[in-house]
Amino acid sequence: MEDDVTDAKPATRSRENTRARLLEAAAQVFAEVGLGETSVEDICERAGFTRGAFYSNFVSKDQLFVELAGSFISQQVEAVRERIQGLIEGGPSAHDTVGLVEALDVPGDVRLGVLLMSEIRNRAMRDADTAAAYLAQDQGMVREVGVLLDDVVRAKGLSLTLPTEEAARVVLTAWEGVSARGIIAGLPEQQLLELRAQEIGRIADLIIEHGPEGC
Amino acid sequence: MEDDVTDAKPATRSRENTRARLLEAAAQVFAEVGLGETSVEDICERAGFTRGAFYSNFVSKDQLFVELAGSFISQQVEAVRERIQGLIEGGPSAHDTVGLVEALDVPGDVRLGVLLMSEIRNRAMRDADTAAAYLAQDQGMVREVGVLLDDVVRAKGLSLTLPTEEAARVVLTAWEGVSARGIIAGLPEQQLLELRAQEIGRIADLIIEHGPEGC
Repeated sequence: MEDDVTDAKPATRSRENTRARLLEAAAQVFAEVGLGETSVEDICERAGFTRGAFYSNFVSKDQLFVELAGSFISQQVEAVRERIQGLIEGGPSAHDTVGLVEALDVPGDVRLGVLLMSEIRNRAMRDADTAAAYLAQDQGMVREVGVLLDDVVRAKGLSLTLPTEEAARVVLTAWEGVSARGIIAGLPEQQLLELRAQEIGRIADLIIEHGPEGC
Repeated sequence: MEDDVTDAKPATRSRENTRARLLEAAAQVFAEVGLGETSVEDICERAGFTRGAFYSNFVSKDQLFVELAGSFISQQVEAVRERIQGLIEGGPSAHDTVGLVEALDVPGDVRLGVLLMSEIRNRAMRDADTAAAYLAQDQGMVREVGVLLDDVVRAKGLSLTLPTEEAARVVLTAWEGVSARGIIAGLPEQQLLELRAQEIGRIADLIIEHGPEGC
């Protein structure tokens, strides 16, 4: 489906391409300055499109945000699922608590990802649609991390110190917390990644029994 | 210091009272709709003051927000410190892992507190002044919870499974995470408090050795 859009770029754009570029531009601006501080004009300027192109694709900034939240979230869960599958298929010796960090550390702009998720999480506290997208991610992530945790302990003859779902939740909460703190502290990306790996390693030690059960 | 303010309320207001009422109104509006979606007019309307009264006290909405963040944060840390002191002075049998929940569960509007801290945390990722206030709280809270953890284990002859500061951080990260999730899930206040208590109880079990060291 093709639209002609009146802008400085080559005239013909597929509707999907316009939509995708607006979503990508919006993700950047939302991450940089926040949802409330972003206008439709800001998004259009970043994407290189007109307001007309925007409103052909989205009802409002808020509706775009909810759609963006949903798709960003789905991408994250899918990426984590793929990485976990890869680790599991690599065999039991190929992964351990380090595997948790590898699985969750999805490639991409770390800072932008943390900022965008923070914006989504913050908005989810006040908006039912965003909340639904956020809770779906939460469930998706808990499930995927649970799959990995069960595999790690099974392969190594260990056990978890909590039910799988609770253990997965502790990991994910710690991940989110250290990510937020690292960004707030202005850590350079490499340091953030290292801090996160340390923190998750510590959490993994807490949730995995490192000796025979009942000691 | 007294100002006459032109508004519908009795004419004479102390400057401190005006300032305090504007801060309180702003806290409510920020919590309800978010920093970006709040205007100076919104704050004035809620507080019952004019723009003139606002700008006699604050340079801008953002400056008010940073000041509010700092004072809200200080109040929280101080309240937690007092509760912990009370628990410790109550004697070793008077507190345990339950004490963690009691210490952190500062009286006040739970929902407003979570929403406001979320707004502060989100903003802190993009604004250096807010980040400074947030990191100061983080340090203050880690210190206070660390004091309580050390006291609990010492009084009961137990030990922590992590260094004190790290253990405190795990507790606080879990606290923030379950609070956010509860609000996003739209839990009624009582359920949120119960979920939080459960989660912190679980975390406490992870960070406190419940048997002789080395098993």
